Amino acid sequence: MGKITLFIFLIFISFKITAQKSVSDSLQIRAIYNEVLENGEAYENLRYLCKEIGPRLSGSENAAKSVTWIQQLMQSYGFDKVWLQEVMVEHWVRGEKETCVMHVNETDEYRQLSICALGRSIGTNGQLSAPVIEVSSLEDLKGRLDEEIKGKIVFINQPMNQKYIETFRAYSEAGSIRYNGASEAAAKGAIGVINRSLSTNYDDNPHTGAMKYKDSTNMIPAAAISIVGAELLHKALKKGRIDITMKMSCQNLPDAKSYNVIGQITGSKYPDEIIVVGGHLDSWDLAEGAHDDGAGVMQSVEVLRLFKKLGIQPEHTIRTVLFMNEENGLRGGKAYARSVMNSGEKHIYAIESDAGGYTPRGFSFDVEADKMDSIKGWKSIFEPYLTNRFIKGYGGADIGPLKPTGTILIGYRPDSERYFDMHHSANDVFEAVNKRELHLGAAGMAALIYLLDRYGLPGEE
Amino acid sequence: MGKITLFIFLIFISFKITAQKSVSDSLQIRAIYNEVLENGEAYENLRYLCKEIGPRLSGSENAAKSVTWIQQLMQSYGFDKVWLQEVMVEHWVRGEKETCVMHVNETDEYRQLSICALGRSIGTNGQLSAPVIEVSSLEDLKGRLDEEIKGKIVFINQPMNQKYIETFRAYSEAGSIRYNGASEAAAKGAIGVINRSLSTNYDDNPHTGAMKYKDSTNMIPAAAISIVGAELLHKALKKGRIDITMKMSCQNLPDAKSYNVIGQITGSKYPDEIIVVGGHLDSWDLAEGAHDDGAGVMQSVEVLRLFKKLGIQPEHTIRTVLFMNEENGLRGGKAYARSVMNSGEKHIYAIESDAGGYTPRGFSFDVEADKMDSIKGWKSIFEPYLTNRFIKGYGGADIGPLKPTGTILIGYRPDSERYFDMHHSANDVFEAVNKRELHLGAAGMAALIYLLDRYGLPGEE
Repeated sequence: MGKITLFIFLIFISFKITAQKSVSDSLQIRAIYNEVLENGEAYENLRYLCKEIGPRLSGSENAAKSVTWIQQLMQSYGFDKVWLQEVMVEHWVRGEKETCVMHVNETDEYRQLSICALGRSIGTNGQLSAPVIEVSSLEDLKGRLDEEIKGKIVFINQPMNQKYIETFRAYSEAGSIRYNGASEAAAKGAIGVINRSLSTNYDDNPHTGAMKYKDSTNMIPAAAISIVGAELLHKALKKGRIDITMKMSCQNLPDAKSYNVIGQITGSKYPDEIIVVGGHLDSWDLAEGAHDDGAGVMQSVEVLRLFKKLGIQPEHTIRTVLFMNEENGLRGGKAYARSVMNSGEKHIYAIESDAGGYTPRGFSFDVEADKMDSIKGWKSIFEPYLTNRFIKGYGGADIGPLKPTGTILIGYRPDSERYFDMHHSANDVFEAVNKRELHLGAAGMAALIYLLDRYGLPGEE
Repeated sequence: MGKITLFIFLIFISFKITAQKSVSDSLQIRAIYNEVLENGEAYENLRYLCKEIGPRLSGSENAAKSVTWIQQLMQSYGFDKVWLQEVMVEHWVRGEKETCVMHVNETDEYRQLSICALGRSIGTNGQLSAPVIEVSSLEDLKGRLDEEIKGKIVFINQPMNQKYIETFRAYSEAGSIRYNGASEAAAKGAIGVINRSLSTNYDDNPHTGAMKYKDSTNMIPAAAISIVGAELLHKALKKGRIDITMKMSCQNLPDAKSYNVIGQITGSKYPDEIIVVGGHLDSWDLAEGAHDDGAGVMQSVEVLRLFKKLGIQPEHTIRTVLFMNEENGLRGGKAYARSVMNSGEKHIYAIESDAGGYTPRGFSFDVEADKMDSIKGWKSIFEPYLTNRFIKGYGGADIGPLKPTGTILIGYRPDSERYFDMHHSANDVFEAVNKRELHLGAAGMAALIYLLDRYGLPGEE
């Protein structure tokens, strides 16, 4: 064979191999989708987590049950290694269901309002009664004179901006009324704070979530009011003075021992290079934590199950990490990252699913803007699966602490329209999750991890 | 001014005008979305249609009520012209709720099965009892010997293919078990037919829908069984002979007088060139017809409301057509097209929303393949609204008869994952519709129509 002939032959061979590889990748990804759509187990696993275990607030008995159950589940799937990682978590308890009654001044008109304490809030130590003052935002609150606020319960009535197409944008803009409202109000002498629920729909279920006191010397009770309640209170306040009497028996207990639950399939070629996929096992206590984040948990387990079931042997280690205490402490995410840094384990990619189990849209990549063009080269692979929206963006709360290790962070991004209808409220139940949507998300994540394992992220070294 | 300077100046002016036009289009489209997301009325209108009127089977009292109400609604919005178009519709009635009991041969074991008659089916004329024979598809049925089938009730247990990403594909593949099953079974001597519900989820609600007898001399009762029932029956049949006793009192009555409801904003420049947007006002009788097709109806009305509210004066006439009798006759769609042909009215585009009120994905264009490249030039305009999936495909059932007039047909395509969970069953209720998803669909349709009115479809003359 002459040199040129050999050269042409080699080009031909190389072309053929590339082509075959690409066809076989397509077939493998199609097989992942087929398996999950026909035999996926994430949905029934989620049913168990929601209906047999239920709400899983950090430090609770249910959280402990969920740790044991999911460890056993991953063991039953025969993953190469399944273990618990101890983590001390914040331990806040709601106590009795909160009560809140508004009284129209100088009348006999009393109305019950649906509220719930915010995570980390102190209780009211019996009943708390005071006149209400409404503000439209934290900026509005900051601009008020101390004498306007002093001795009152501040009602921060800022709605989520409905005009954004993506609801997470509205959530992040309005989120600080919940997180920082108490300290801002306390600084001006308020004795309590109530925020309009961070919600996109109109119902009477309040939405809880974490708040934080800036310092421990000036703590006042903080609660969220349902949208129905907020509208009622707003209208009443337009007519005159309203007093509120509320009772919350929540409290912060000492940190409790809990666990991240971890399972992996060990890489055949690069066992020490790790791709993480995860969600958080804890949930708020008002519902079943179905979308937040039972969905992400069960999708992350399903990814490994799919690899195992289909006999896909990854070259790198694929590790499912189910984080504890994302909702009120992020202790699981921090502990995991700390252990990675301490051990020097090499993490190459981390994918988080914590935006609900809704129909897939795509992924967000926490990379420099100039990397996105290369990454978008993969969009066409995901187009048939309607999971081809690839944007620069946030990875996720639990994987966030891994960023300093150089791990590339990726967020799974399902459709967001329904998310804040149920988020952190009694609406977050199994029935709100659709089987196909949940499973398509798991398949999309598995497909992405399959490609990352084989080729690395396009444009990366 | 020299010639060259003038030339450059003209280029500059022309560029500036184009740029301004494009910016003003973006702002106008953003204004459409803002209006619908903040003040959209489709959702509350849909609540009324579902909760105050309810199921709207053609020829029913509710269908008549919906005609009157929606005519008044469009008049109340001040559209330029609102009218009714008479149409004779098929008039099938279900009668009493169906019963179906299976009996395990030579035992005392009896089980109730959830079934519902299919639209156009005859009743059982009292009780119908016979042994059941299961087939896996129409092809399986056609391959059976007549003596296997004769005197029996045929149970066609073909599931929708769960592996397709788009559920409509599975529906169209499996659809003929419902539509043609009775005639195929009757040809071989069966005395009744039951099909596994065309459903993507697992519950006990049967899914109805239209069937058709090939000829009127050999008609047998046809029903759908719930997925739970189908699984039960399938398992029982594996063990031995099963007899079924069913009772259906449905019947076909003479055609009834009804109406398409039509409203329009008349074009300022080309009043005789019409862009239609529509959905169908009738629904099946088992639920509220919320997604099918209350959603499309209210989105189509909302499109005109948005033009009116925002003061957008279209150059062409924009006409909302709410078709009657799509479910069991398509008489409304046919009558409308006939009137267009008879009058010689020029229709340039027709957009139909009859795929549910779920989160938007994009549009399908019933055009030659080579036109799609130009059309996709508009994808970027819809990208910020996550409505940028532009595919070649089906327009819709009701606008289909307009095709011979040269009208370009376009289908609004929301996400399909949840659609066949509820389609034609008791699950199709208002609560299954999400406000933001419904409204985003209306905005997407309005934005597309805005662009079609201004520029025509890219690549068209």
